[in-house]
Amino acid sequence: MNTLEKPKVHYAKKIGAPPGTLRHIGDVYLEKTKLRRTVYTADSADIQETEQVQPLLMDASPTGICWIEVNGLHDVETIEKIGRHFSIHPLVLEDILDTTQRPKFEEFDGYLFFVLRVPRLIKPSAGAKKQTGYFHDQIKGNIVFEQISWVAGKDWLISFGETGQDVFESVRERILTGKGRIRLQSTDYLCYSLLDLIVDQFFSVLDDLGDALNYLDEALVLHPGPQQMKQIHFFKRQLLYLHKAVWPVRELIGAFERCESGLCNSATRPYLRDSYDHIIQVIDMVETYRDLVAGMLDIYLSSISYRLNEVMKVLTIISTFFIPLTFIAGVYGMNFESMPGLRWEYGFYAVASLMLAVALIMIKFFRIKKWL
Amino acid sequence: MNTLEKPKVHYAKKIGAPPGTLRHIGDVYLEKTKLRRTVYTADSADIQETEQVQPLLMDASPTGICWIEVNGLHDVETIEKIGRHFSIHPLVLEDILDTTQRPKFEEFDGYLFFVLRVPRLIKPSAGAKKQTGYFHDQIKGNIVFEQISWVAGKDWLISFGETGQDVFESVRERILTGKGRIRLQSTDYLCYSLLDLIVDQFFSVLDDLGDALNYLDEALVLHPGPQQMKQIHFFKRQLLYLHKAVWPVRELIGAFERCESGLCNSATRPYLRDSYDHIIQVIDMVETYRDLVAGMLDIYLSSISYRLNEVMKVLTIISTFFIPLTFIAGVYGMNFESMPGLRWEYGFYAVASLMLAVALIMIKFFRIKKWL
Amino acid sequence: MNTLEKPKVHYAKKIGAPPGTLRHIGDVYLEKTKLRRTVYTADSADIQETEQVQPLLMDASPTGICWIEVNGLHDVETIEKIGRHFSIHPLVLEDILDTTQRPKFEEFDGYLFFVLRVPRLIKPSAGAKKQTGYFHDQIKGNIVFEQISWVAGKDWLISFGETGQDVFESVRERILTGKGRIRLQSTDYLCYSLLDLIVDQFFSVLDDLGDALNYLDEALVLHPGPQQMKQIHFFKRQLLYLHKAVWPVRELIGAFERCESGLCNSATRPYLRDSYDHIIQVIDMVETYRDLVAGMLDIYLSSISYRLNEVMKVLTIISTFFIPLTFIAGVYGMNFESMPGLRWEYGFYAVASLMLAVALIMIKFFRIKKWL
Amino acid sequence: MNTLEKPKVHYAKKIGAPPGTLRHIGDVYLEKTKLRRTVYTADSADIQETEQVQPLLMDASPTGICWIEVNGLHDVETIEKIGRHFSIHPLVLEDILDTTQRPKFEEFDGYLFFVLRVPRLIKPSAGAKKQTGYFHDQIKGNIVFEQISWVAGKDWLISFGETGQDVFESVRERILTGKGRIRLQSTDYLCYSLLDLIVDQFFSVLDDLGDALNYLDEALVLHPGPQQMKQIHFFKRQLLYLHKAVWPVRELIGAFERCESGLCNSATRPYLRDSYDHIIQVIDMVETYRDLVAGMLDIYLSSISYRLNEVMKVLTIISTFFIPLTFIAGVYGMNFESMPGLRWEYGFYAVASLMLAVALIMIKFFRIKKWL
Amino acid sequence: MNTLEKPKVHYAKKIGAPPGTLRHIGDVYLEKTKLRRTVYTADSADIQETEQVQPLLMDASPTGICWIEVNGLHDVETIEKIGRHFSIHPLVLEDILDTTQRPKFEEFDGYLFFVLRVPRLIKPSAGAKKQTGYFHDQIKGNIVFEQISWVAGKDWLISFGETGQDVFESVRERILTGKGRIRLQSTDYLCYSLLDLIVDQFFSVLDDLGDALNYLDEALVLHPGPQQMKQIHFFKRQLLYLHKAVWPVRELIGAFERCESGLCNSATRPYLRDSYDHIIQVIDMVETYRDLVAGMLDIYLSSISYRLNEVMKVLTIISTFFIPLTFIAGVYGMNFESMPGLRWEYGFYAVASLMLAVALIMIKFFRIKKWL
Repeated sequence: MNTLEKPKVHYAKKIGAPPGTLRHIGDVYLEKTKLRRTVYTADSADIQETEQVQPLLMDASPTGICWIEVNGLHDVETIEKIGRHFSIHPLVLEDILDTTQRPKFEEFDGYLFFVLRVPRLIKPSAGAKKQTGYFHDQIKGNIVFEQISWVAGKDWLISFGETGQDVFESVRERILTGKGRIRLQSTDYLCYSLLDLIVDQFFSVLDDLGDALNYLDEALVLHPGPQQMKQIHFFKRQLLYLHKAVWPVRELIGAFERCESGLCNSATRPYLRDSYDHIIQVIDMVETYRDLVAGMLDIYLSSISYRLNEVMKVLTIISTFFIPLTFIAGVYGMNFESMPGLRWEYGFYAVASLMLAVALIMIKFFRIKKWL
Repeated sequence: MNTLEKPKVHYAKKIGAPPGTLRHIGDVYLEKTKLRRTVYTADSADIQETEQVQPLLMDASPTGICWIEVNGLHDVETIEKIGRHFSIHPLVLEDILDTTQRPKFEEFDGYLFFVLRVPRLIKPSAGAKKQTGYFHDQIKGNIVFEQISWVAGKDWLISFGETGQDVFESVRERILTGKGRIRLQSTDYLCYSLLDLIVDQFFSVLDDLGDALNYLDEALVLHPGPQQMKQIHFFKRQLLYLHKAVWPVRELIGAFERCESGLCNSATRPYLRDSYDHIIQVIDMVETYRDLVAGMLDIYLSSISYRLNEVMKVLTIISTFFIPLTFIAGVYGMNFESMPGLRWEYGFYAVASLMLAVALIMIKFFRIKKWL
Repeated sequence: MNTLEKPKVHYAKKIGAPPGTLRHIGDVYLEKTKLRRTVYTADSADIQETEQVQPLLMDASPTGICWIEVNGLHDVETIEKIGRHFSIHPLVLEDILDTTQRPKFEEFDGYLFFVLRVPRLIKPSAGAKKQTGYFHDQIKGNIVFEQISWVAGKDWLISFGETGQDVFESVRERILTGKGRIRLQSTDYLCYSLLDLIVDQFFSVLDDLGDALNYLDEALVLHPGPQQMKQIHFFKRQLLYLHKAVWPVRELIGAFERCESGLCNSATRPYLRDSYDHIIQVIDMVETYRDLVAGMLDIYLSSISYRLNEVMKVLTIISTFFIPLTFIAGVYGMNFESMPGLRWEYGFYAVASLMLAVALIMIKFFRIKKWL
Repeated sequence: MNTLEKPKVHYAKKIGAPPGTLRHIGDVYLEKTKLRRTVYTADSADIQETEQVQPLLMDASPTGICWIEVNGLHDVETIEKIGRHFSIHPLVLEDILDTTQRPKFEEFDGYLFFVLRVPRLIKPSAGAKKQTGYFHDQIKGNIVFEQISWVAGKDWLISFGETGQDVFESVRERILTGKGRIRLQSTDYLCYSLLDLIVDQFFSVLDDLGDALNYLDEALVLHPGPQQMKQIHFFKRQLLYLHKAVWPVRELIGAFERCESGLCNSATRPYLRDSYDHIIQVIDMVETYRDLVAGMLDIYLSSISYRLNEVMKVLTIISTFFIPLTFIAGVYGMNFESMPGLRWEYGFYAVASLMLAVALIMIKFFRIKKWL
Repeated sequence: MNTLEKPKVHYAKKIGAPPGTLRHIGDVYLEKTKLRRTVYTADSADIQETEQVQPLLMDASPTGICWIEVNGLHDVETIEKIGRHFSIHPLVLEDILDTTQRPKFEEFDGYLFFVLRVPRLIKPSAGAKKQTGYFHDQIKGNIVFEQISWVAGKDWLISFGETGQDVFESVRERILTGKGRIRLQSTDYLCYSLLDLIVDQFFSVLDDLGDALNYLDEALVLHPGPQQMKQIHFFKRQLLYLHKAVWPVRELIGAFERCESGLCNSATRPYLRDSYDHIIQVIDMVETYRDLVAGMLDIYLSSISYRLNEVMKVLTIISTFFIPLTFIAGVYGMNFESMPGLRWEYGFYAVASLMLAVALIMIKFFRIKKWL
């Protein structure tokens, strides 16, 4: 079981290397790095997929905007080539390859640099889902984060992904079909479109998380147990990671909106302001969910305390009721030859009456204590 | 049972749509969108209700202020028509239709945009209320939030509501009767009047909540139980949602007061400052109530602990008292033929004396422990 | 029992009224509104008490400073008259009449407006105090808050109180006797004097609270119980209300000191700085007391846990010791005809030895567990 | 037992007095106020001790720096005389006499004013210390605070202490012996020296506190009990008071460093920056200790819970094991004439076997529950 | 056992010494202070190791950058000589010798001063590590901090370490081999290289800590016990110290980047910005780990509560089931001569049936309570 976020990353190997040394830090998801180039102008759009970087860079047509998607980061050489071709600073490349980056936005001479962490819900197999609720077991249904980064120049944008999941499909589709205003705008609008998609991704994950929380909330009322406790704990962690991934995005979008280089047109700013509002909304939801989960923990703990109390009360009532009676019976079970009453005809009835009296007193006592 | 705020909203369907795509996100409360137009000058006022948008927009008289109320948001087409007529930015329309907005104020060229979340207490049926206190059961009595938004131009204001609840009735009445200064002022004063009404709505809900808290506080003292725990938890959530709804309003009013376009006259500013003070007061009350509810939780938990302690003490006293006595009785209940004292005439009395002595020692022991 | 601060105030009735509508919100403490006018110059001072407002305003002498005290706020008409006479903005009058205001300072054209919440300790009857400590029971000894507000113009000041408690007696005395510099200064110094008195009032209440906390702290050590828990809870609330009442005062004094109208002379500023330091000290004490009370709660809960532990240990020792012995006795109490040892002469002694051995082993076991 | 900081101070008596009224607020430690005057130039230094203030002020030599130490604050008259001689503002004198001041720095025309709270550890008698650790018992070893204030003019400095403890001995010694640069510098360096000594005093107290915490931490592991709980609580309070005393000092030194009057030379600033760093370090240590103490509380509470669990497990095992066996024995102890097996030769052995079987099942059950 | 960070440092001895008095505060790790001088230009590099300071300073060649490493701080004289040679302010030397400094950056006339606390993990012996996980026991595996400081002038840099651990080995290697750009840059780049190495050191320690936390997390699920509690507590402390060590570094790097003296070239700034991002990442990880550890504590406590509940339920079921039965058996074990049913042929079966009935009722009761 692997519950902490970054256990496999061994930073130690980086120690002492000169800055700008390119090295992939992170897991490998794809066997081969996959490349995809989308070139578009207001009137046309063209997509090309390959695994070789050289040809792509060769005929990079000077007209239109060229967007290269790189999927898979372990092939350091390819990324270095791209970096050299677009004269990207080695420190930027180092950040792209280190998949433990905190989301950030940086402005360089001639290009802008974005890093984000995109959440994705890994759902269980479809069959199991219907019956048990996919967050029900912490093995099924999990939020994973993929680092998505891109560098945007005047008429080019290179985006980098780890897993090859096609996050930006719908943007590419809009480019191909010419839907919306994307083909009429410059790279800053493309940057916004990517950002917007990632923000939507957060909404989508939170939506599923909300369903799962609802499910847990019901379960907590119906049959609280250590299972629920583990769930609560699991949600707490997921929300902690979401919190860490989403907070810096606010700053990122704000910095992009305010950036003063010619790479961000004023026409794009209202859209960015809209994205900014959305990310604030995401943050708000994450914090609300965290508060809700904290409240669930309180409920869980107090319900355990309360039930312990109830259990003890039953035990105490039973014990307190019978122990004195049993003692009386024990006394008359002693084998002394001369004991008062043993030979008396109504001895048994007398003792039975005594027991009854004690029992009635006990019941009275419980009534006073309000246990019955 | 539906305890989380936004479980039914599926953001996922929005993913990938180009920005400005109009889509209603939220529940549908009304079968048909209802429209109401109030046109007023200093001397006259006229109200017209309809379900058709076209005629309303047609004869939008150029003299006086025109306030259109739109109730029900699922009819995207109608809202699009209005938006086009008043040239409202598509992103604003998108925000109006997405009923999960965070309260905000935005200034556009030629108009101002307000979104708020208005709380409303759904009270139980009148008969049940008197007997049980309407917050007593979490099914009865609940705070729901409705998104109210409006766009205000120089001489027009269009407000949007979800449920058709007539929140702004008293403002309309004041316009009709010409009470107060509302007919003499421009749209900024109308904006203020709407804001003021919404702030009053918060006060009203908090007032009811205060009564309910008082009720709970008493119940907690008289008969604490898991019922109360659920109540506390329920209040915590309600206050969390109120908190989320009320905090951004402070910023909203502040931004409106400071806005530099010609749409906010300096004569209205003192009124806005007053509203600002009121919303601060609302925030203060919400935070106070949250602290009080947190305190109740402490009381509840500690009272459970204390009672467990008491229960255990009773059990321990009874057990500790009788267990040794029962053992002595058990020893003399053994069937050995040769046991010292069994045939002695005063054997029973000797053992009874021994028991008495043990009992007295026990009582002494409890006295020392301060249990008796 | 009425433990929440504002349960009787029903804001609901205000909803929809046009702003500036004067309405008294709060409790009524006095049958009739009482008025008192103090007029003073450097050389003379004159006090006049009445229940009629007209004569007071009539001969408001133009020379010297005129300070009118209004006690009791339910007589809206009187206050409206005063407001009109001094041309006070209706929103200010509305704030004066709404006794649920948050403390604030506002600067208007020609006058300054102050609202504060003054704490007062309602002590129990003198006889009971000595024996039990006046905070010992939450019915006796309580902090209540009175809203005190005033409007200060160039040569007039009108102060408003709810209950008729004579908070400002000592200032009036100083004016009458000409002690200190008060008669030589203008209204800003009078404002400062009132503020200073209110700050002193906070110190006084905190002083009593400190005594009560000391008392509770001792009680917690000597005989902890649910009584103490309630006390702690009670203090938490009182300190919460004090906290809410005192924090805004810091801002208030700061704003008064910085205010740029001619109504605050530079000669008064060092005095205000002194008041500012005092209110910081008050805030510090309130926070310290809150930390102390939180610490008491910890102590209380942990002492309950510890005692539960002790109780359980005793029960366990007794049970664990006697239950096996009782079982052995039970075995030899069975009525089988042929049981080994029953007819043996030393059977009883053998079994008794066995019991002794078991008992010794048990004691050894408790020693290992460090329970004895 | 006196556990709150300011229980003896009755602010109430101050209420209503005009500002600047001199009154000593605090405890009296010395019978008579003691005065000491140190006059020094670069070449000479002279010390004079007395109880009369007049002669000291008379021949205040104009050459060199004159430092007057006043120990004991209850003699208001003497302090008033000094104040008048050096024309110190009455509000400053009021602050000096009120020993409940929050640390602060104020700049006046012609002089600077400092107030600080100096911690001192009251150690137990030397004999007891070695054996038990002086913080072991809350009666032995306690941190007390003394208010130290001073007013520094161009060539004079008057310092005020409460208890007559000679805090500044080493500075005076350096002046006498001419060690360091103190005699070559002006009063700002003297101020710095006093501040530095006070900061060192904080370090010293924290050093002792650290030892005591170490001691407590070990005790908590070896033999946790309510004694340790009280210790933890005691440390929490001590650290709370230290926290309150040390935080404002940071601001104080910062304000002194930035002060723009000619009374602070630029040559002294690097020293003040050094002091500033030291006080940050003190704050850091206090916060670290507070976190550690909070952690100790967690450990204490969880160890109590854990032990309760262990105790209950033993009780449950013993009870669950013997109660069914005892029941079986009880059944065969019934006196029915016709009971199956009683007269059977191997009856006893059969029942004994039954008991053994039950016992083995029980052990198996405990194994499954992982209790054995 | 030594669990607090600074128990051996006795600040007390510093009290009263004039500022700038050099005294070593801290532990002594090396017998003799070791010196190492690295002199390099763009074309050459030369390293020299010695224990004598004089010769090193003598032939400090004017060409190239001269980096002197001083390991071991107890030899105050040597450090004083170096300080005098490079005219370093005595307060700086004092800070270098006091190994309890908070990380900071200071700019002086002609040189810059850096102090940092470098974490290092002391791992257990290699054999033990594989089997048990090196953080498993708090004696094995511990984070210790070493104070590393350096003073950087135009063409010289003197670094100071406590323990002689060769932290900067890889930088020296890069200088020797001429790898990277280090030999082409001035001292600011050397400063950056040292900083970068220290930041990497934080990553390395956090990496190991992450592994250990993962290990603990699993252990907590498999066999929770007081051992785990101590581990959690141990991690909390370690992370507290890391937190204290890493926070000020952020400020330090920021101040270095912004510093306006000619000692920081603009070419180095992008590298510093990169370091800044890294330290933010470190801080983020530390905070995440702290949240995780806090969550573990919750899990531990709730799992203890839950198990107590389970234990009590078993005890209650067993007791409640058998106690009434045992009582019935006890009644018929009484030795009365005339007791109904004793002589009846089917008496025993009747009583046995009664017992069975009671038992069935009990089971029904447990079913209702949902305990079975």
